[in-house]
Amino acid sequence: MTPVYDRVALIGLGLIASSMFHAIRRAGLADEVTGYTRTQATRDTARRIGLCDRVCDSAAEAVAGADLVVLCVPVGAMGAVAAEIAPHLAPGATLSDVGSVKRAVIDAVGPHVPGGVHFVPAHPLAGTEHSGPESGFAELFDNRWCLLVPPPGTAPEPVARLRAFWEALGSHVETMEPDHHDLVLAVTSHAPHLIAYTMVGVADDLGRVTDSEVIKYSAAGFRDFTRIAASDPTMWRDVFLTNKDATLEILGRFTEELFALQRAIRTGDGDHLFDYFTRTREIRRGIIEAGQDTDAPDFGRASAQRGPEPDPAGRGDG
Amino acid sequence: MTPVYDRVALIGLGLIASSMFHAIRRAGLADEVTGYTRTQATRDTARRIGLCDRVCDSAAEAVAGADLVVLCVPVGAMGAVAAEIAPHLAPGATLSDVGSVKRAVIDAVGPHVPGGVHFVPAHPLAGTEHSGPESGFAELFDNRWCLLVPPPGTAPEPVARLRAFWEALGSHVETMEPDHHDLVLAVTSHAPHLIAYTMVGVADDLGRVTDSEVIKYSAAGFRDFTRIAASDPTMWRDVFLTNKDATLEILGRFTEELFALQRAIRTGDGDHLFDYFTRTREIRRGIIEAGQDTDAPDFGRASAQRGPEPDPAGRGDG
Repeated sequence: MTPVYDRVALIGLGLIASSMFHAIRRAGLADEVTGYTRTQATRDTARRIGLCDRVCDSAAEAVAGADLVVLCVPVGAMGAVAAEIAPHLAPGATLSDVGSVKRAVIDAVGPHVPGGVHFVPAHPLAGTEHSGPESGFAELFDNRWCLLVPPPGTAPEPVARLRAFWEALGSHVETMEPDHHDLVLAVTSHAPHLIAYTMVGVADDLGRVTDSEVIKYSAAGFRDFTRIAASDPTMWRDVFLTNKDATLEILGRFTEELFALQRAIRTGDGDHLFDYFTRTREIRRGIIEAGQDTDAPDFGRASAQRGPEPDPAGRGDG
Repeated sequence: MTPVYDRVALIGLGLIASSMFHAIRRAGLADEVTGYTRTQATRDTARRIGLCDRVCDSAAEAVAGADLVVLCVPVGAMGAVAAEIAPHLAPGATLSDVGSVKRAVIDAVGPHVPGGVHFVPAHPLAGTEHSGPESGFAELFDNRWCLLVPPPGTAPEPVARLRAFWEALGSHVETMEPDHHDLVLAVTSHAPHLIAYTMVGVADDLGRVTDSEVIKYSAAGFRDFTRIAASDPTMWRDVFLTNKDATLEILGRFTEELFALQRAIRTGDGDHLFDYFTRTREIRRGIIEAGQDTDAPDFGRASAQRGPEPDPAGRGDG
């Protein structure tokens, strides 16, 4: 496959950037991938595990000569990083990012983009509860969506090129308008994450004795919440602070519905509960049919345990 | 392995009962397993797929001569089923159940238990989002907890025998007091399920266009909620109606915390969010260390897709 970019620079070396590096190598996409991250210890780790062809000690050095620069830092850090690298971006380069919020990134990064540089924000809908440079793997983006959110007036060629790049990493690509992106993600990701964080925090508040039982008996449903609530704290703090309005709107609707269901429980309105639960079951069906999740019971956890690298403790799905 | 019971009767033939049958057969545990369920079509299905050695057309016929009778019906139906079978239970038999709520089952079933019959309620903490007689599999209880909740005064021998039975089906067994059981399960299972149902319902309310996008982009977190919210509506209606007080108490604490986090988002209090999310991440660590879940990213969904029975659609993790 011909490289769609000769030189790619990854700024920030967490789960997404490290997965991008492995996926770029798998696809044979670029002659050189440079990397930079703020913390010395993380740069040392990256060098030790061979992450990126060259790990640089400054962002300026990493982006010099790159024809694609991807900001892979928390949304709240995007503006400062953009300001730092702007003078060093090559003319004709494409500047992109992987942030989970798009309006805030456009507002923070846009003003720093020099003339002659193409700014094409992006959001790969992919991730796991793990983070850091050692958590990446080449398959992370396979068959996952990547949303491109070019600001009005962006030239079509850099958008098409970035699309080809993400497709080569394994993704399906769509373009979307920034505010619509932020609303859809508030529903599919941001509100669910806050709710999971909340439920896990409540369980933790119930004190040590109950708490150990909560962990012991977590397989009854709670553990699904803990996986979501184990996601990177800095990233998620920034998501909520920068997608405030849409998240609060969805949470407001959520609270309304929750109160209605609590009232149905209190008054013993079984029909209301039954009808509600029947409706939600249909939505799961839609997700399976759309190919967005496995239909294997419990996400196929059991076969994950039986896979080529079994859990030596052997407790697995316990 | 010697059978711990000669004749087992399963009343209700859904996910749990059908998994029990397969696990009993795997372990070579009983000479005969009889089954009964209220719906003719379900009895026909059970006969067609060879579920149970003998499917009976009445509950009375199924329990006649059984030394273990297990009620596998929704919690709200336990009392009526117990009244129906009581006159037909063999002296010395053990009567048990698999309900997710224990105080309500004890109150509903207890008064019907004839003298000479041992009543030992139980709750296997196992299940998937699938239901019905064709959803069962022998491995469902492997390394999962089964909680026995014998009322005060229950003889020790029938409890020990039921413990040996569940251990032979693959479970780890503990005994617990009924009200404590219902509180722990409200935290680990009942409140999380109601919250997941609520979030999925909210997404559905957002209208058709957004709705299809919600499904399309559900891999960002939402799909984990939809799995939980795809569980059996009748079973869950009964759980909430019969574990009302504990569920409402936990939901009250949940709402308090959610409002505090919403306020932190609104006022831009990033430290509060960061500290909260760091704390919840630790709990996930505890669950992995306790062997209660896989540490594989995304529950090992990807390897589930790559397993011996790959999804022919090939989209898998979306």
